[in-house]
Amino acid sequence: MTRDLTIAEVRLTPILVADPPLLNTQGVHQPYTPRLIVEVVTADGTTGLGETYGDTKYLELARPFADRLVGRRVSDLNGLFTVAQEVAVDASRVSGQVDVGGLRGVQTADKLRLSVVSAFEVACLDALGRALGLPVHALLGGKVRDAVEYSAYLFYKWAAHPEGVPAEKDDWGAALDPAGIVAQARAFKERYGFGSFKLKGGVFPPDEEIAAVRALAEAFPGHPLRLDPNGAWSVETSLRVAEELGDVLEYLEDPALGTPAMAEVAARLRDAPGRGAGGRRAGVPLATNMCVTTFAEIEEAFTRGAVQVVLSDHHYWGGLRNTQHLAAICRTFGVGVSMHSNTHLGISLAAMTHVAATVPDLHHACDSHYPWQSEDVLTERIAFEGGTVRVPDTPGLGVELDRDRLDLLHRRWLDDDGALRDRDDAAAMRVADPAWVTPAVPRW
Amino acid sequence: MTRDLTIAEVRLTPILVADPPLLNTQGVHQPYTPRLIVEVVTADGTTGLGETYGDTKYLELARPFADRLVGRRVSDLNGLFTVAQEVAVDASRVSGQVDVGGLRGVQTADKLRLSVVSAFEVACLDALGRALGLPVHALLGGKVRDAVEYSAYLFYKWAAHPEGVPAEKDDWGAALDPAGIVAQARAFKERYGFGSFKLKGGVFPPDEEIAAVRALAEAFPGHPLRLDPNGAWSVETSLRVAEELGDVLEYLEDPALGTPAMAEVAARLRDAPGRGAGGRRAGVPLATNMCVTTFAEIEEAFTRGAVQVVLSDHHYWGGLRNTQHLAAICRTFGVGVSMHSNTHLGISLAAMTHVAATVPDLHHACDSHYPWQSEDVLTERIAFEGGTVRVPDTPGLGVELDRDRLDLLHRRWLDDDGALRDRDDAAAMRVADPAWVTPAVPRW
Repeated sequence: MTRDLTIAEVRLTPILVADPPLLNTQGVHQPYTPRLIVEVVTADGTTGLGETYGDTKYLELARPFADRLVGRRVSDLNGLFTVAQEVAVDASRVSGQVDVGGLRGVQTADKLRLSVVSAFEVACLDALGRALGLPVHALLGGKVRDAVEYSAYLFYKWAAHPEGVPAEKDDWGAALDPAGIVAQARAFKERYGFGSFKLKGGVFPPDEEIAAVRALAEAFPGHPLRLDPNGAWSVETSLRVAEELGDVLEYLEDPALGTPAMAEVAARLRDAPGRGAGGRRAGVPLATNMCVTTFAEIEEAFTRGAVQVVLSDHHYWGGLRNTQHLAAICRTFGVGVSMHSNTHLGISLAAMTHVAATVPDLHHACDSHYPWQSEDVLTERIAFEGGTVRVPDTPGLGVELDRDRLDLLHRRWLDDDGALRDRDDAAAMRVADPAWVTPAVPRW
Repeated sequence: MTRDLTIAEVRLTPILVADPPLLNTQGVHQPYTPRLIVEVVTADGTTGLGETYGDTKYLELARPFADRLVGRRVSDLNGLFTVAQEVAVDASRVSGQVDVGGLRGVQTADKLRLSVVSAFEVACLDALGRALGLPVHALLGGKVRDAVEYSAYLFYKWAAHPEGVPAEKDDWGAALDPAGIVAQARAFKERYGFGSFKLKGGVFPPDEEIAAVRALAEAFPGHPLRLDPNGAWSVETSLRVAEELGDVLEYLEDPALGTPAMAEVAARLRDAPGRGAGGRRAGVPLATNMCVTTFAEIEEAFTRGAVQVVLSDHHYWGGLRNTQHLAAICRTFGVGVSMHSNTHLGISLAAMTHVAATVPDLHHACDSHYPWQSEDVLTERIAFEGGTVRVPDTPGLGVELDRDRLDLLHRRWLDDDGALRDRDDAAAMRVADPAWVTPAVPRW
């Protein structure tokens, strides 16, 4: 039974993957987005896969971190956090503010480290599972469900990236008004069977986005709906939208930026006439993947009642076991939990599926950006059936690397002059609109 | 690599183990105390060991629970909590108050279930580790230290159980005043090398226990000291003791009963003149294993700042992985963590050692009652070296069952007429003092 679980080699492969022209409050997705693929190889040749952000600041940390892992064991998952502390973070990479690449919440040195750890933790779990003949969920205490439900992730989008910009084509078409969003939702439902719908907002004035959600509610009566303007609204605007859409929203996601503003919105929703125990119905719950993205942010947000649902993301939180800790904290404080997602490939979707399968109180469909990614590094794409991903019972994550695809996407990264190696949605928007500046918050 | 991890059989063996005449605020330890030994046997013959309380109310739950586990896999740890919910708890067993057996905090149906789950979770982890060739700590993410520090657990005690009562002899002698406690501490230090000392208080009027702690401070200058009256004091008495011993106590454990009283003590210690950021020193921290013993009690205690250290106990919390969740919650809220212990054998000490080895912020020596147990069910007792237990790297927990010893202690349980099958420290005290009634709280 004794396999040699010592890490003999770590391979890091930065890649650029196609991303459609999806709009958000900071701008538009670039035609290609950087990701980092991690391979952890044990002394007896078992390889585990992980994936995280590929921006320069993550690569800078991943390389010295990877060097320190050689000679350690893939089962030493707690030790990853100790090792991460030994890796210096360039202070210029730490803004203390919301980053410009993908709205990942506050940027701190520890959070950068945890985002790097997440890929290695997943790779170690994959390798350990393969070596032991156990699926990753079994290494996390075992699945409590056989399939994980995901939601359709609707975006306002252009039909194509700006002319003259190298990009892959997509067949989703434009979606710039309520009819376009409903058509996109129908396509998602047909192709993948999703039953919940999330609209990425903060792009158009609130009344247009309210109209889009109303159109979704009419087209898909009874289906859970969510709206996420990424903190673009004032407290007053947040309250107005919550009031107007309170009867159809499962939750309202990050309407205002930061815990103080979210706490004020939540408090005023609770105190509104007709709300609460004796009232007509409770106010719409607030969800976040922006003001609670680190353990350090939890105490203030929870004690102030700023959020009712935390959208976990194992890339933020330092891996799958930390995601389980986060879920336990949420359960303890009566806060719901679901999952956030932005541009990622199948390795991370598999990781999300394994950990989601182990979280007892997962009462909302998880977000997944994966359908927007036409490219992947796997031999076989992960399939959605009836809006769910089946939890694999094969050893490890249950996915296989397609090395030719990996090489192709890596060559694209090598060939890039640096313009796309750091995700910057505002820069991508300036290609179409040279006058574009990242909007001040609150935008509306 | 594929072993059959299916549970084929579960063996439950209630036993009675010798316990010295140790005094606490409810009375005195009985000469024999009930424990339950759990063996989980997989289809290919791997056996895992667990241990929990042996009182009738736990046995009543353990039997139907064990029946439901046959056919499940030892890796399905998250599923144990689902299965536990299927087992009915007799409402008459649930007082909602602190129990009379060992001061284990509030008694709820869920907590009874979790105490049963804890033994099975440990047994499953032991079996899984043995089957995979991995130590239990590796199944918990890996150790971050090679040895776990424990503290000496000092008790006021009689030289022997009352005359005429069947009991095992011990060689610790009586300890009923400061000199006796210091002598006991010296013996603990000589035999086991402990560097921290905890005195179980709530037995004599506070001034006598203050004198005992002062005597310890003089005999062992600079060594961390703790005093635990099990909630026997009023808020005013708690504050007076905290003030008088503030310069020598590492923490004061459960001076008053319940979160409201603890919160008041903590608040007044914080607000006392000369305290806090600008003051001479911070007030003595409060620790608990009585007002925070379930996840449901955390929110109130933490948001009110009632405790600064939680003494975890995997028997209370539902096992080793829940203990890790608890530690993550404490870390997130800036609350320290250490470990509680009452009468238990080597299986539980091994389990405590494995999980303690994985908790990053373990800044206090863990309690251990083990030195008081002259009997065990292992082929080899666990050794303390320099006050620490070495973290085993052998598969599973790293302990072996001595079936002859188990049978002997089980026969003692079979032969008992029922008087000792439920721990009751007040009943044991009444043997010596028929007029004894459990003291009202606060006692002083």
